[in-house]
Amino acid sequence: MRLSARSAVDPFIVMDVMEAARAAEEAGRHIIHMEVGQPGTGAPKAARARLAAEMEAGPLGYTVALGRPDLRAAIAALYGEWYDVDLDPGRVILTSGASGGFILAFSALFDAGDRVGLGEPCYPSYRQILTAMSLTPVGLPTTLDTRYQPTPAHLDASLAGLIVASPANPTGTMLDRPALAALSQAVADRGIALISDEIYHGLHYAERATSALEVTDDVYVINSFSKYFSMTGWRLGWMVVPPDHVRVIERLAQNLFICPSHASQIAALGAMSPEGRRELDGHRAVYAKNREIVLAGLARAGLTKIAPADGAFYVYVDVSAFTDDALALSGQILAEAGVAVTPGLDFDKTRGGGFLRLSYARATADIEEGMDRLGAFFAGRG
Amino acid sequence: MRLSARSAVDPFIVMDVMEAARAAEEAGRHIIHMEVGQPGTGAPKAARARLAAEMEAGPLGYTVALGRPDLRAAIAALYGEWYDVDLDPGRVILTSGASGGFILAFSALFDAGDRVGLGEPCYPSYRQILTAMSLTPVGLPTTLDTRYQPTPAHLDASLAGLIVASPANPTGTMLDRPALAALSQAVADRGIALISDEIYHGLHYAERATSALEVTDDVYVINSFSKYFSMTGWRLGWMVVPPDHVRVIERLAQNLFICPSHASQIAALGAMSPEGRRELDGHRAVYAKNREIVLAGLARAGLTKIAPADGAFYVYVDVSAFTDDALALSGQILAEAGVAVTPGLDFDKTRGGGFLRLSYARATADIEEGMDRLGAFFAGRG
Repeated sequence: MRLSARSAVDPFIVMDVMEAARAAEEAGRHIIHMEVGQPGTGAPKAARARLAAEMEAGPLGYTVALGRPDLRAAIAALYGEWYDVDLDPGRVILTSGASGGFILAFSALFDAGDRVGLGEPCYPSYRQILTAMSLTPVGLPTTLDTRYQPTPAHLDASLAGLIVASPANPTGTMLDRPALAALSQAVADRGIALISDEIYHGLHYAERATSALEVTDDVYVINSFSKYFSMTGWRLGWMVVPPDHVRVIERLAQNLFICPSHASQIAALGAMSPEGRRELDGHRAVYAKNREIVLAGLARAGLTKIAPADGAFYVYVDVSAFTDDALALSGQILAEAGVAVTPGLDFDKTRGGGFLRLSYARATADIEEGMDRLGAFFAGRG
Repeated sequence: MRLSARSAVDPFIVMDVMEAARAAEEAGRHIIHMEVGQPGTGAPKAARARLAAEMEAGPLGYTVALGRPDLRAAIAALYGEWYDVDLDPGRVILTSGASGGFILAFSALFDAGDRVGLGEPCYPSYRQILTAMSLTPVGLPTTLDTRYQPTPAHLDASLAGLIVASPANPTGTMLDRPALAALSQAVADRGIALISDEIYHGLHYAERATSALEVTDDVYVINSFSKYFSMTGWRLGWMVVPPDHVRVIERLAQNLFICPSHASQIAALGAMSPEGRRELDGHRAVYAKNREIVLAGLARAGLTKIAPADGAFYVYVDVSAFTDDALALSGQILAEAGVAVTPGLDFDKTRGGGFLRLSYARATADIEEGMDRLGAFFAGRG
């Protein structure tokens, strides 16, 4: 059998870094992992306890396609708590990770060949999921002066959709409320569908993140239990869609996914309990401390051209003064300093050769050690 | 925002039946559920025990995209046990339910507009997933004389792919080894990609089911932990693909799903343990007994035009002598006899009005009561 044209997916550069780090560890070296895109912590104790109890109480069959009503209600309530938005639980749709949300959103909103804009640098899978679904990703190059976020000036009527992320991966930058309102108005004027990736919400360190739902109802918001809720391996996310899109998404979800994992939905209910939330807010306090360590370490190393680290657990560092081959540089850093970092190429094929992404999602002691090592590495090059 | 053309998905007729059954129960009636498409049992005790232990031992982060190596090895070993096929675990790919497998397979094999054949009657979501991915489903009408299975005579070179299911939903019929070999040869001759849905394997009552891997390596086999393994709500499936397709699927899976639920992968390892398998074989013995009760009851009711109930937990009954409106008939059966059954229309839009699908997945006492009620219902019409 032959493979289709749309199956031609780029490999992730970060996989090479991770493989090299693994090989170094196997050879007995101590490696600090600042390349990871997930919390080092697991699901909260309350999440595990709730699942342990419920899975013994009865069979976990399919849930309805949109997910358990109690979990949809708990998520809607979160929008009141976090954003003072009064959200109808009927608009909340549980998905198989944020990934499942993107597949549903792209099916609902776009037809084959449609052009969908992405501010670059960005999460590389947007591009690949679009391609796998016969859609056309359109990179919109962003710069530090707009916090590496797209603006109305990036848009034209050839686009059927726009994906924004705030806080973003790899930059950690956020769109503030006026910027989000301007984008929302600009896409509405041009008939462009707006998809707002908010999977890093809950992980912010000064101003809180603004949800697109604070400025418009004409948006697909995608979120996840993987980051703030520390449940990556459970593959559970959610979407909020306009009221008149719910029925269509329900039918698509029923056919494409049947339902998200029932076990994960139960664990998520536990994670959202007051006890679960206390544990999660503790993780955020660790990230906040780690972030200070990273920012101070970068300043000491003279690496001051960085994206504003508003949220998530990343810092995107411009190293173009040192190299245009970030992959080679990350290899040197791993070999000489024993720190795994991600070259920017996965996020921005054109300009990513001049950037590194540092993650501070791991334990504080590791981050301290990592920044000491990076400081020494760059001091030798200063 | 406007919805796309490809989001126009048909509603499931069975949802109306389930809603009517729920309303009847709320009104105090006792309803027998023979419309369900899932086991009434939950994950085996060994599955729950393994997850309970492992989720306390450490964080469940992402697994690698193809799934845990120990689970891939266990699945490969199953092919030795069930089919005497020596399968490289490197060809086994864990997926987010069989649903996730279909999405990956369609991405890998087909380009927008490609025509994909489906023997009808069939699982309705094949058609809807294809449409959502900008592909063109092509119904191939099958008849009782070929066990409602497609044959080489159904194929022409306009097809890019063919999906077969054995045992099938809704009919329960199987393709035997010669039939599968003939189909496999016919698609190879015509350059058509073959996808073999084997999610009901393990649930057979006389001859065992033949895997497409017994007759060819040039196939995508899709399977699941939902049926024999009794883990519907855990959303875990697997695929076996040709060796030279693994890398492409790995990249697609990484982008489209990141990984299947880690928690579910751990539970699946428990389900595959000897203790788990003993429990599951017990369920199969219950289905075997239920099947005898259904077949005897249908014979007593004079409903003898049925598809050979080779496997799964369904019987597809031709009721065209009574009606061409199976939806109305199922409504009458629910109202008068208190039994929920599925009209054939979800599976075959053209001819399904003359068919009912009966599921015998529930407890034996329910199935006995259901067949008594159906017997009385049809006796009044004899």
